[in-house]
Amino acid sequence: MNFSYVNPTKIQFGQGQIASIKELIAQPQKVLVMYGGGSIKKNGVYQQVSDALSEHQWIEFSGVEPNPTAEYLEGAITLCKAENIEFIVAVGGGSVIDSAKYVAAAACYDGDGWDILIGKHAIQKAIPVGAILTLPATGSESNSGSVITKAATKDKLPFMHPLVQPQFAVMDPDVMKTLPERQLINGLVDAWVHVCEQYLTTSAGNMVQDGYAETLLKNLLTLGRDYDNHDNDQWRENLMWTANQALNGLIGAGAAQDWATHMIGHELTVLYHVDHARSLSIVQPSLLRNQAVNKQQKLKQLGLNVFGFEDSENLVNQTIDAIEAFYVNLGVPVQLTEHGCTKEQAIDEIVSQLEKHGMVALGESQAITLAVSRAILENAVA
Amino acid sequence: MNFSYVNPTKIQFGQGQIASIKELIAQPQKVLVMYGGGSIKKNGVYQQVSDALSEHQWIEFSGVEPNPTAEYLEGAITLCKAENIEFIVAVGGGSVIDSAKYVAAAACYDGDGWDILIGKHAIQKAIPVGAILTLPATGSESNSGSVITKAATKDKLPFMHPLVQPQFAVMDPDVMKTLPERQLINGLVDAWVHVCEQYLTTSAGNMVQDGYAETLLKNLLTLGRDYDNHDNDQWRENLMWTANQALNGLIGAGAAQDWATHMIGHELTVLYHVDHARSLSIVQPSLLRNQAVNKQQKLKQLGLNVFGFEDSENLVNQTIDAIEAFYVNLGVPVQLTEHGCTKEQAIDEIVSQLEKHGMVALGESQAITLAVSRAILENAVA
Repeated sequence: MNFSYVNPTKIQFGQGQIASIKELIAQPQKVLVMYGGGSIKKNGVYQQVSDALSEHQWIEFSGVEPNPTAEYLEGAITLCKAENIEFIVAVGGGSVIDSAKYVAAAACYDGDGWDILIGKHAIQKAIPVGAILTLPATGSESNSGSVITKAATKDKLPFMHPLVQPQFAVMDPDVMKTLPERQLINGLVDAWVHVCEQYLTTSAGNMVQDGYAETLLKNLLTLGRDYDNHDNDQWRENLMWTANQALNGLIGAGAAQDWATHMIGHELTVLYHVDHARSLSIVQPSLLRNQAVNKQQKLKQLGLNVFGFEDSENLVNQTIDAIEAFYVNLGVPVQLTEHGCTKEQAIDEIVSQLEKHGMVALGESQAITLAVSRAILENAVA
Repeated sequence: MNFSYVNPTKIQFGQGQIASIKELIAQPQKVLVMYGGGSIKKNGVYQQVSDALSEHQWIEFSGVEPNPTAEYLEGAITLCKAENIEFIVAVGGGSVIDSAKYVAAAACYDGDGWDILIGKHAIQKAIPVGAILTLPATGSESNSGSVITKAATKDKLPFMHPLVQPQFAVMDPDVMKTLPERQLINGLVDAWVHVCEQYLTTSAGNMVQDGYAETLLKNLLTLGRDYDNHDNDQWRENLMWTANQALNGLIGAGAAQDWATHMIGHELTVLYHVDHARSLSIVQPSLLRNQAVNKQQKLKQLGLNVFGFEDSENLVNQTIDAIEAFYVNLGVPVQLTEHGCTKEQAIDEIVSQLEKHGMVALGESQAITLAVSRAILENAVA
């Protein structure tokens, strides 16, 4: 076990914490507030941000959509450069926060921002970012990762850099009260798969990381089973804090990591506009069945320690079935059904995208070649 | 659940990581290396530090003992001021790291350093500190706390300040290979009680914090039961990382916290020179029996989730007995037997110290008055 770990994001958790950004953003700084489709104007969050920044000089950029595109964010980059923005506050879920990270780095670069995604530009500088989370799911509020889409070419790619990690993350569970149920459930599923990508690997014997991951999975299982009681402060607090911990670097420190479900899922989103979380619930069960031998130790551990199964010869299969059942019970799909073409054409399209993006040796052991991805998709696409 | 949490210490975990301090300490800075009795000269750690700092300008201050005293550290403070020290590297366990924190703050203050402990001086500035951990136990390597003793007046007091939190913590499990068994076991016990102080309280329903705390307790129980196999890389890694997590702020975020066992234990250490960890194993079982009604929910949860007991009417007592048995099996005392006076005199001395230090309403509910402490000591002192 060998790793370097630090998480410098200051977490401000609890009811009323949005007001604390007044002190968290130094004055005088010119601030850009980024947000999405305007739900924050209906649920009072915009007003709280506005009140907190009443003594700051700030402008806004809105309309950020799920799976944000480089094309749309060009407007925010131009704005940052023209207005000499010194701090960006992202008010939203993963899409808005990921967007703020991209804009923060691209605005400090003279070339095309997309160069960051294709590895042509190494980030040297970025505008500082802070996050006000409105949708617990991605963990983007306290990590250095971001996923951006180029609509024109159907490329959805990730980048990571410490300079774009939010300096603070405000997590007020009250913001979840007005979330559509679809988003709440997507968040639960997204967090579940984030933990799995770092836990269901060939790593063994890291007692802290494994125990923490199992805690998060048990929490998500409990919250999912108790979904009917989700209009409750404690339910919201526990989901928000669990989803954050699922991807803040801690459970992945020193562990092998997979992320193949995400990489294949990204192609489903970009090709067929599947919600991010739903692309994961579609890919993961089939991927786990395909990789069941490689991952058998951890799948057994998951079955025993999270689902509470007894040990048996069938434990691996039982565990994968239980994950699938968890998704089905939450109402998210476990197969891709809407692709507007034949199953074979869809699989060809997806595999061809994976090839284009260099996703030719995925998973913690690089065992998922294009042929393996094709085999996984055989069972994931209807 | 309402909290603010950040842990800015960069963790460098794994074999060979001591070399990384070369890059972690900016040049040119004048460095003070602090350490203890010289065991680091025998086990190669001093040489590794020396090699890593070969291009830095550095001097050293050694001889720091367990339960470090303000009197002894006066020498280090004088040295820092005279030599304009710009960075302090603590190479040791909690005593050395706590000392470095105290020296770092006291060297930036014109008055008596002890003023920091008695709340007469509020820290405004401190020399930056880094830690190379040689004894996993206190978690001091990545938190902002420190405990210092004034020998002349038998005062052992804590202080906390973000400015003294180590910028980095190097944790190479190999340094544990040459530790005396007594220190290894003390570390295990200390970490166990750290988790209990944050977990065994009246807080309820924080699924992340509780699950993480239970993970750490299960780890320590497993490592303790497997103590005969402690000369093993994975055993060392797991103890080192578990002890760190036990007191880095995470499991205590938003939770009620107790710390009465520590405050009473400090008096045992200062009066009768009991090892810190052993002062805790002496106080805690009796304290838990005394507070069993207040803490019954969490004691039951501990019994069920950590010890794996079945639910029963006797669960609370069974759980406390199991904690006591854990200590007995590790060979640490569960009663104070060496105090050089009668039991009554010892209890009077301890209670009188608690009164002197204002420890008159301890525990998460301030329920432990001097009378309650006296009742606890009735069963903790032989």
